[in-house]
Amino acid sequence: MKKMTIGAFLLSMMFGVANAQSLKSPDGKFEMDFQLKQGVPYYNLKYNGKLVVEDSKLGLRIFKNSSIKFASEIAKPEDAQFDLNSGFSKIAEKRDSKNETWQPILGEKKNYINHYNELAITINQASTDRSIIVKFRLFNDGLGFRYEFPQQKNLNYFVIREEDSEIDFPTDMKAWWIVADYDSQEYKYQESKVSEIPSKWSQAADANASQTLIKDAVQSPLMLKKEGKEPLYINVAEAAVLDYPASHLEVDAQNFKFKTHLTADRQGAKGYMQTPMQTPWRTIIVAPKAEDVMDSKMIFNLNEPTKYTDTSYIKPTKYMGVWWEMIIGKSQWAYSQPESNVRLGQTDFTKLTPNGNHGANNTKVKDYIDFASENGFQGLLIEGWNVGWEDWFGRSKEYVFDFITPYPDFDIKMLNDYAHSKGIDLIMHHETSGSAANYERWADKAFQLMNKYGYKSVKTGYVGDIIPRGEHHYSQWMINHYYRIAEKANEYKVMVNSHESVRPTGESRTYPNYISAEAARGTEYEAFGGNNPDHQTVLPFTRWMGGSMDYTPGIFQTKLDYYFPGDNRFVKTTLAKQLALYVTMYMPLQMAADLPENYKKHMDAFQFIKEVAADWDDTKILSAEPGDYVITARKAKGTENWFVGGITDENKREYTVDFSFLDKGKKYEAVIYEDGKDADYINNPQSYNIYKKEITSKSKIPFKMVRSGGFAITIKPVK
Amino acid sequence: MKKMTIGAFLLSMMFGVANAQSLKSPDGKFEMDFQLKQGVPYYNLKYNGKLVVEDSKLGLRIFKNSSIKFASEIAKPEDAQFDLNSGFSKIAEKRDSKNETWQPILGEKKNYINHYNELAITINQASTDRSIIVKFRLFNDGLGFRYEFPQQKNLNYFVIREEDSEIDFPTDMKAWWIVADYDSQEYKYQESKVSEIPSKWSQAADANASQTLIKDAVQSPLMLKKEGKEPLYINVAEAAVLDYPASHLEVDAQNFKFKTHLTADRQGAKGYMQTPMQTPWRTIIVAPKAEDVMDSKMIFNLNEPTKYTDTSYIKPTKYMGVWWEMIIGKSQWAYSQPESNVRLGQTDFTKLTPNGNHGANNTKVKDYIDFASENGFQGLLIEGWNVGWEDWFGRSKEYVFDFITPYPDFDIKMLNDYAHSKGIDLIMHHETSGSAANYERWADKAFQLMNKYGYKSVKTGYVGDIIPRGEHHYSQWMINHYYRIAEKANEYKVMVNSHESVRPTGESRTYPNYISAEAARGTEYEAFGGNNPDHQTVLPFTRWMGGSMDYTPGIFQTKLDYYFPGDNRFVKTTLAKQLALYVTMYMPLQMAADLPENYKKHMDAFQFIKEVAADWDDTKILSAEPGDYVITARKAKGTENWFVGGITDENKREYTVDFSFLDKGKKYEAVIYEDGKDADYINNPQSYNIYKKEITSKSKIPFKMVRSGGFAITIKPVK
Repeated sequence: MKKMTIGAFLLSMMFGVANAQSLKSPDGKFEMDFQLKQGVPYYNLKYNGKLVVEDSKLGLRIFKNSSIKFASEIAKPEDAQFDLNSGFSKIAEKRDSKNETWQPILGEKKNYINHYNELAITINQASTDRSIIVKFRLFNDGLGFRYEFPQQKNLNYFVIREEDSEIDFPTDMKAWWIVADYDSQEYKYQESKVSEIPSKWSQAADANASQTLIKDAVQSPLMLKKEGKEPLYINVAEAAVLDYPASHLEVDAQNFKFKTHLTADRQGAKGYMQTPMQTPWRTIIVAPKAEDVMDSKMIFNLNEPTKYTDTSYIKPTKYMGVWWEMIIGKSQWAYSQPESNVRLGQTDFTKLTPNGNHGANNTKVKDYIDFASENGFQGLLIEGWNVGWEDWFGRSKEYVFDFITPYPDFDIKMLNDYAHSKGIDLIMHHETSGSAANYERWADKAFQLMNKYGYKSVKTGYVGDIIPRGEHHYSQWMINHYYRIAEKANEYKVMVNSHESVRPTGESRTYPNYISAEAARGTEYEAFGGNNPDHQTVLPFTRWMGGSMDYTPGIFQTKLDYYFPGDNRFVKTTLAKQLALYVTMYMPLQMAADLPENYKKHMDAFQFIKEVAADWDDTKILSAEPGDYVITARKAKGTENWFVGGITDENKREYTVDFSFLDKGKKYEAVIYEDGKDADYINNPQSYNIYKKEITSKSKIPFKMVRSGGFAITIKPVK
Repeated sequence: MKKMTIGAFLLSMMFGVANAQSLKSPDGKFEMDFQLKQGVPYYNLKYNGKLVVEDSKLGLRIFKNSSIKFASEIAKPEDAQFDLNSGFSKIAEKRDSKNETWQPILGEKKNYINHYNELAITINQASTDRSIIVKFRLFNDGLGFRYEFPQQKNLNYFVIREEDSEIDFPTDMKAWWIVADYDSQEYKYQESKVSEIPSKWSQAADANASQTLIKDAVQSPLMLKKEGKEPLYINVAEAAVLDYPASHLEVDAQNFKFKTHLTADRQGAKGYMQTPMQTPWRTIIVAPKAEDVMDSKMIFNLNEPTKYTDTSYIKPTKYMGVWWEMIIGKSQWAYSQPESNVRLGQTDFTKLTPNGNHGANNTKVKDYIDFASENGFQGLLIEGWNVGWEDWFGRSKEYVFDFITPYPDFDIKMLNDYAHSKGIDLIMHHETSGSAANYERWADKAFQLMNKYGYKSVKTGYVGDIIPRGEHHYSQWMINHYYRIAEKANEYKVMVNSHESVRPTGESRTYPNYISAEAARGTEYEAFGGNNPDHQTVLPFTRWMGGSMDYTPGIFQTKLDYYFPGDNRFVKTTLAKQLALYVTMYMPLQMAADLPENYKKHMDAFQFIKEVAADWDDTKILSAEPGDYVITARKAKGTENWFVGGITDENKREYTVDFSFLDKGKKYEAVIYEDGKDADYINNPQSYNIYKKEITSKSKIPFKMVRSGGFAITIKPVK
């Protein structure tokens, strides 16, 4: 517990509860207060009568002018007069509440419940005659708050220097965190006390293709646990990050306090605002059980319903890809010599010498189509289909790709016709190499090409530093870019799976065709430097809180020395855990990432991937602890079939599935996929055991997961 | 003359002429030497055997990596190892020459002669094993040189930190200059000694809508005069600034030396390069007569011939505009209240309260169409036709305009139909408010709209700070933007007249539909703060060296108190000088900028504007001195008609036109427009005298130009 000075104590007595506006959650378990202390806005949060968040400051700093000049990012003392963080008096208070049930187009459950009480306080800064609204929504699973800027005489256009929303926790806690960065989220999760974050920060920041680290700060969502007899799980995140930069959390490790840090542009500006406008929601989800945090839909509820008039094209899709073989280095994106110097519009790619190892060639793609079709997939991603990969990365080159010109050995018409004849839709790939400016130029032509050949979805990519130069992956300009592309894709009835873009914060409610982002270390990192065995047990508490991730599970051939003798890279899971990920990781555009040749050797295990659904009527988080394990059951959309997945971290673990979530009195056939007794993620990852069993809602099945192991179950009613 | 140290003298003896490569101009009057002194490249230039440019350094500095990170603009000492300015040895030398005549699509003469000798020296830097080519072209009017970067193992992608090309003059000279700025060229010309530039620099930098000044540097083109018994006129400029930033000139006032300073982007980077690539040409035009400098086509000759396959749509056009009345404040661009807060896609402009003073309304536009049609014009520009002007400027707002949605009182179909029925083409206006990123997004739809309604040309505008934020009007990204728009316009067969963009450097040879830029203080500045009376006598030696300017002459009602009693703004010329500008200022998309009501009062003088041509078979600079006067005769394209214009600065001046340029033995009828005897640009600007006279090639007519006055003559053969 932090020490409170006598002065602070007296202040809190003088300006404390008497002035406070209180709000309770619908179930009464949460309560929060808003108050102005000497003109400075504060809020706190209680759960079951106990303070979860102490009095924490609110406010923003803004630039003097809406037009920012070079070096204006260096604040002068007199700029403080434009800050919106003090000198306030309350001028209005408005309360509201809502209890609605809505259906996500694609989701983890059929119905999402949006139930909250709302408090909106209008405060006015006399010195500037500017009013802002601080709006709080208190749900049964936590708090969201944001700033709203009504259009008014003295506030029409302004630029945010920083948002200073604080979250001040009373005690030290356990934290699962990654280092803050304006350009990358692809870091290994760290588990430490909040107080230890600064001392562990530097070693947690490994290299990335594009990175702009923020010293000692961590990324949002941040998962926390107050340990002890009455544990509390707390998730700190944000919702509806639209037309605003993504935020990070500065850490005050002595005081267990976090402060918003927005992604800057090259001018040091954080947000270009035109009233009426509002910030994203700052969210604090709190629950005594980890499962309830993971199950929270609060972040989605804080987003607006979609305005799309036609969502019929948005469909769950399982896909394979000519992809993993490039990630591991077995084939190449480039058609000719990588590292060679090419220019679109000048280089004649038909005259280049093929490197002989180009992945996206007609023969190989047809083989993939055949296998995907035979096994009931709907989609096939092909990367490296278009010209420009010879010199695509790291050269600050703006015009790398045109998104419309195939390599000479990729017959776009023939392959799409062939795929369609087999019930497969090819999935387009738009790697931008970070050159969003160039992508926007080509977007219409690129989507027109997709429509012409019948592509239904696109994987976009932003590897490398952003162009417009000086923008960052998470700055306001790029945030707007991602959703501009989503809207453009909607014009063309295309689903988007975005990589190296910003983590989603519930926007799929508003942009339901923006199916997922990557925005964390996915399976590909197993080939680039490895993921920790607990990685997949943290992600659902962090990256997944605001939307799906294209993690690309399903690697059966986990050891890469199979391809390259002596190669010590390997995917740090058992094969059974790979299956379980299809349930523990929600993703309606879900990949089976391994090569057909590897699936062919394990068609019995592959059966699970063939059968598992990608869209759901219901989800039950059976048991979970961040960094340790996740056991999830999901009911497939429009059926009575259930799927269960369980994964563990670097520790072996026993878990008994209680099937009481099944309909009472019904008989089901379960097919169980589990780690073999001698399985081991390092020494024997491909050892698994498959068996069938008839079960009811009264059944219980014990599992022994080996270290970084797991299990998966398909459950179908017996007819 | 500067002092040379003994050491420098000895060095020049040791490494001097013996190692030099020499090149002569075709007529032998110019000679230049290239040499490496201890590995550092130098050149010099002699005219008639005398040094015009002393040994001057060549070279560039580059960044270590092609990917520039934040703060990398601050060079570290070790970065010097990547500089391309020393340690060179010569590995090859190649000579070439050309003598060609080419026809500009639109031009000042029917034929431009491109006649030069070329020397290309390949030098290799042993420490990096990088080779560059320094290429010199010596014409009969001066020198151009550039750096070429062949594709090679150690030089594929690099970023320029600075180009350090120097021009070291032996003596102090008179200079006509404006302050250097990354965002504006709209400054008043200064006339001073080179040595005086630093002391006069600060007062020469007045405010602009967007400016990023470079202390003590001046802009290119720079006009110089070596005074004395054997005067020399020297123009320092550049040619073919494509995919490279525009350059400025740092001034070493003690040594009369200038050094290239490239426009930076926000990262401090100057040019993102991919070999094979080259810099623009640095140009030094030298002549004993000022007229010959003005007449030089060297800068155009240093550009590449166009690759456009159809140039039939590129036609000289005289136009009027619903424009000047907005510039002076008589009507408005905005339909509703200026300074109000609007949002495209959300604001319903039909529901806004009209301000009652919107310029681009149906009634007014039809009146302009009628007048333009009755007087033989081809085009009519209308600004403020499209939604968004309410809050267009200075708010760092990216989405200000969509370029396709007319205001409620502008019936785009009706007005275009009406215009076409009267033989007039409306001229589109695309003001971007500096948001080039947004313009690129809308460009196709905007040009499609133009094609739909029959617009043939567009005036583009870039008022305000650039978005992508951190880019500048003259940085590489924006240079590419301007010519990207030119190419886009060519796709749609549209001519471009670009404002607030970069000064042209001869690109009209390559992009002949890029008719002109503004890129200097035009007539509009008479309403914003005034142009000096000598302004128009300097521009042909500076701004015009690389291409036409949309100066928008033709103001008859020069005193603005006519509209606003007590208003002391006025156009600082006589009416007769306004007529003369149509000849002294080459512009194939030429405006008559005043209001019809003002022309109606002076239809006799307006007759000159109606008759004057905009495209020419021949041009004779009869007499000119920068800052003092310009007398020009031009022969209209495809006719035997000539037009003469003469202007003077703040001093009254007498000049006798010698008509010996006319065909011998032919009779012509001349109509003379001259200042009235009592004319005065301040007290009596509208006093003029018109008379006819039959002339031959032996005729001479004396003129008395009053201060800031002028004269104009139409000359037609007597049939």
